[in-house]
Amino acid sequence: MRKFAPVDFTRVSLTGAFWRERLETVLTRTIPSQYEKLGSSGILESLLLLDPPPPLRIPRGPTGHTHQVFWDSDIGKWIEAAGYALRHRRDPDIEAKVDDIVDKLAAAQMEDGYLNLWYQGHEIENRWTNLRDRHELYNAGHLLEGAIAYFQATGRRKLLDVMERYLDHIRTTFGTGPGQKRGYCGHQEIEIALVKLYRLTGEKKQLDLAAYFINERGRQPHYFDIEAVARGDDPKNFHFYKSGNHQYSQSHKPVREQDKVVGHAVRAMYMYTAMADLAAELGDAELKRACEVLWNDVTSTRMYVTGGFGPSASNEGFTTDYDLPNDTAYAETCASVAVIFWAQRMLNLDLDGKYADIMELALFNGALSGLSRDGEHYFYENKLESDGTHQRWDWHPCPCCTMNVSRLVASVGGYFYSVGENVVAMHLYGGNSATLDMGARKVRVEETSNYPWSGNIRISVDPEGEGALDLKLRIPGWAKGAKASLNGTPVDVATGTRDGYLTISRDWRKGDVIELDLPMHPQRIFANPRVKMDQNKVTLRRGPLVYCLEQVDNPVPVPEIVLPRMAEIAARERQDLFDGITVLEAEGKTLAKDDWNGDLYRTSPPTPQPVTLTAVPYYIWANRELGPMAVWIREN
Amino acid sequence: MRKFAPVDFTRVSLTGAFWRERLETVLTRTIPSQYEKLGSSGILESLLLLDPPPPLRIPRGPTGHTHQVFWDSDIGKWIEAAGYALRHRRDPDIEAKVDDIVDKLAAAQMEDGYLNLWYQGHEIENRWTNLRDRHELYNAGHLLEGAIAYFQATGRRKLLDVMERYLDHIRTTFGTGPGQKRGYCGHQEIEIALVKLYRLTGEKKQLDLAAYFINERGRQPHYFDIEAVARGDDPKNFHFYKSGNHQYSQSHKPVREQDKVVGHAVRAMYMYTAMADLAAELGDAELKRACEVLWNDVTSTRMYVTGGFGPSASNEGFTTDYDLPNDTAYAETCASVAVIFWAQRMLNLDLDGKYADIMELALFNGALSGLSRDGEHYFYENKLESDGTHQRWDWHPCPCCTMNVSRLVASVGGYFYSVGENVVAMHLYGGNSATLDMGARKVRVEETSNYPWSGNIRISVDPEGEGALDLKLRIPGWAKGAKASLNGTPVDVATGTRDGYLTISRDWRKGDVIELDLPMHPQRIFANPRVKMDQNKVTLRRGPLVYCLEQVDNPVPVPEIVLPRMAEIAARERQDLFDGITVLEAEGKTLAKDDWNGDLYRTSPPTPQPVTLTAVPYYIWANRELGPMAVWIREN
Repeated sequence: MRKFAPVDFTRVSLTGAFWRERLETVLTRTIPSQYEKLGSSGILESLLLLDPPPPLRIPRGPTGHTHQVFWDSDIGKWIEAAGYALRHRRDPDIEAKVDDIVDKLAAAQMEDGYLNLWYQGHEIENRWTNLRDRHELYNAGHLLEGAIAYFQATGRRKLLDVMERYLDHIRTTFGTGPGQKRGYCGHQEIEIALVKLYRLTGEKKQLDLAAYFINERGRQPHYFDIEAVARGDDPKNFHFYKSGNHQYSQSHKPVREQDKVVGHAVRAMYMYTAMADLAAELGDAELKRACEVLWNDVTSTRMYVTGGFGPSASNEGFTTDYDLPNDTAYAETCASVAVIFWAQRMLNLDLDGKYADIMELALFNGALSGLSRDGEHYFYENKLESDGTHQRWDWHPCPCCTMNVSRLVASVGGYFYSVGENVVAMHLYGGNSATLDMGARKVRVEETSNYPWSGNIRISVDPEGEGALDLKLRIPGWAKGAKASLNGTPVDVATGTRDGYLTISRDWRKGDVIELDLPMHPQRIFANPRVKMDQNKVTLRRGPLVYCLEQVDNPVPVPEIVLPRMAEIAARERQDLFDGITVLEAEGKTLAKDDWNGDLYRTSPPTPQPVTLTAVPYYIWANRELGPMAVWIREN
Repeated sequence: MRKFAPVDFTRVSLTGAFWRERLETVLTRTIPSQYEKLGSSGILESLLLLDPPPPLRIPRGPTGHTHQVFWDSDIGKWIEAAGYALRHRRDPDIEAKVDDIVDKLAAAQMEDGYLNLWYQGHEIENRWTNLRDRHELYNAGHLLEGAIAYFQATGRRKLLDVMERYLDHIRTTFGTGPGQKRGYCGHQEIEIALVKLYRLTGEKKQLDLAAYFINERGRQPHYFDIEAVARGDDPKNFHFYKSGNHQYSQSHKPVREQDKVVGHAVRAMYMYTAMADLAAELGDAELKRACEVLWNDVTSTRMYVTGGFGPSASNEGFTTDYDLPNDTAYAETCASVAVIFWAQRMLNLDLDGKYADIMELALFNGALSGLSRDGEHYFYENKLESDGTHQRWDWHPCPCCTMNVSRLVASVGGYFYSVGENVVAMHLYGGNSATLDMGARKVRVEETSNYPWSGNIRISVDPEGEGALDLKLRIPGWAKGAKASLNGTPVDVATGTRDGYLTISRDWRKGDVIELDLPMHPQRIFANPRVKMDQNKVTLRRGPLVYCLEQVDNPVPVPEIVLPRMAEIAARERQDLFDGITVLEAEGKTLAKDDWNGDLYRTSPPTPQPVTLTAVPYYIWANRELGPMAVWIREN
């Protein structure tokens, strides 16, 4: 069922300014500083739990938190990000740091393979008694992803060996066989990691374990209830399991029966990613169908215009259809990162622009907004409106988002292309130079562009050997009136495009050049009126970027700016902002305050007053002085 | 300095349907049911505290509260309302109830005159140690107002005697003399009551005591700090004294220096009422000037369009200029009642329509909304926007508002007229028949109208004896293009009107008839754009009534209704609603939801869809099925 496979990010060298800058920042600032933060917040100290013997009290880090059950995952995720960084360029200092962590993890691993720093440090007798809340398998998944990335970068397999031993223990412990627990994790993640391991080693048992976890989920009698009773707890007592029901962990029913996106947003997105992975690897049409239904559900009823997911802080997740408050939006960075994972997996199944459109949307907006310009400050919650008090953290008590965005950016080239049989698909644009393995042949593709600031894209194709090859170029949903040419001859985009991809079939020769023109006229975006919060409001988009009004760029308070329906919106390059960005400008209106003569109310309407509004890309907000911000602008 | 005096409400017989209905409801339902509630909530039981001896545990009433320090005031306020009711018509049953309360109060009064059921029941040793928080003088004030009203209704002076004894005790305890406490109450009120007593008895000492309380307020060293230290408390520890500063009780500086309306709204309004009273009685120009400054401040920066005051629940009061949130509006009924008191006192000083306009606004909107149609349900908070969850109480843990609105309505005729030397001023309209004492002469005035539903007003004047008399007819600020005639001959309203009053001077004869036409075209009201919450919104007014959208009258959700600037607003009589009201109708817009084909966002704007909106007077909302409501309607 798998028709396409993504291209390893090391084969895609990013040459365009936009991603070059983000990538450099992540490699040189974000990943190194995250190691420092793991140390100063006490997370690395959790590695020492067994020496001296447990329970060792972890000193409070700058975030004021003692050992958290999910800290192993943060270690794993940092190793994964560091592994990606090392594949860009080796670094003995970083490698020494990873090796030291790996040594400690190896030393900590128990005789039977079990490895969980929190349980080993605090209450080993209670391991595997609360899968619902305690993240053991989630932690294992992230450590495994770290192990794979580090192995791929360095060839050192010590952590991979540790994790494979741990997986053997997990495989023994969980399953449908006699004496096995029919459990699965309250926080999905290990399923994704297991598919990655399967793709690395080809061992079917890893895929089977992932499939077991997915298939077991949500069956009755409910495992989380069974284990609660077994530990002497009331299954109805959800403690810090916030939403108080199994929808929170998408285990309210078997995954194949799920047709509504519910619960904790990151859990959900990780699960759908794994479901799509399994559908591809196992040819499981039922899982694929469930993914499609869930994809359509979330993108048509529960997604922010920025590609953010999960409006509510109380469950870090979904609420009801069309409930998308802006000022209280949770829209966790991790959820936008995870939807990119999911979209990529859906593109393995079907080359449909609807997946790539959301992948791009979440990447350039809801995910990228989570990382500051300086690469060392973060949003956990990506609000779409701020009264001026919402600001970036330099760390977080739960630093999941920080390393999710670094591992994403460090490997972002991997989302640009997929290859199938004699097919190269380009999903994302941005200057790059890629060498794609097409089975026996290699194809070099070189893109020159100033994307996302410009939609003028030049692609040169240089294949090894001969033979026809389909080049499928994504025509983004936002690109109305796209034009293309091949070696100067126009290509009919309208007739050549299906499901969002323009196919150019050809026996390619070195020197073949495609010019693609994706018009980047500023666009007004309107929300379905069922989204009450956005009624009579508009937001602006140009190309893949959603824009917002930030106070620092505007002469009157942001909440007081009105954008008339008829006002022209102009794109303007601003070399003075950051490394050069394109802002949007329009003649907006505000209400004059100086002609009221002390009246509080009157029968004549306020006098409109023109104001030039300036909107900046959402992803770059909150990198200058603190102030109000709004994605949705009042219309009039 | 006092130029005018209001006319006792017993001289104004209300004949118009609007006030006739409200008055009958209050007399026959509200006041009797309030006695029942005083009983069932345990308040009347507090009268028994001394028998058996204290501390007797008050059984929890339906509101679940034990004896509150302010309950004496509720007893006093009910006696006051009952006293007004008895002046409309005697009622042996009500009188027996009052007499019983009075007997208990008399029995409770201590040898030295002190009378406070809470302190006597709980901690008599601590009396007069916490004027800031414990309402002792406030309670005395309300009991005194009750005593005066009951004496005026029945001639029975037992309670008046009790209160005069208590005042002697208070006068001995407080003052600037040696050994006296230089205290005053944390909740102003007794000052108003003392001026009433002075007007009844002519005893200067009562006026002096009121003046002492007002003049002492806010001086340094601060009495509330001194008494806190004396009782071993930290003056910075404000306990349930919510705002944590002396602005809360308007004692942050001497009252003459105050130029900004701050703190607890009801405390503020009661204080300003007393200040205006004292300015009039003592010819105190400085107090008058302070009142004028404060009046202009509050009406130009801190007043809801409904005549509500105090946006914040946390201090039951004022916050910052132009901070007038609608959905969280506190706008306590008591504060709107109290501004009517204050406005009436300002009219004693200067006949200026700006006072009468606010008096009328608060009366017909912010105050009247506090009482349900059935007369037995209440709003304490008068929100200007509801999501459908805000509903009336049948009682309140702090029932201050319930009896404030009953004592107001029971005496509402007293706000219609003032008389000065050879001047009769008409402030409010509504069918009535009044007999006004003009010194030696009497003047009968009879108004026939269907006010507030119609602005067509017929006034016949029938004076005793001869001699010129100025009739001053208020031309409301909202009445653009008002017309008048005398015995069929047009009167030039524009030239004859000054400060909001049209003066007709004449040697009046029986049969003289004035016809007044106050045009009641529906009006759009806009808020100063500094009120952020109301930007790009509009509200509707017709005559003295502010309107709102209530869900029950509208076919689409109230928050989704937009009223285009150009839409015509039509007034329509609806005999099917209540006893007949005038609603406002307009062609509004909403956004079509059925043409989105499952899209959550799109580049083409939502399709406007016409919707006939129906607005009802604000005062009558929340008397039918529960649902969303909005005073401010989105414009487009």
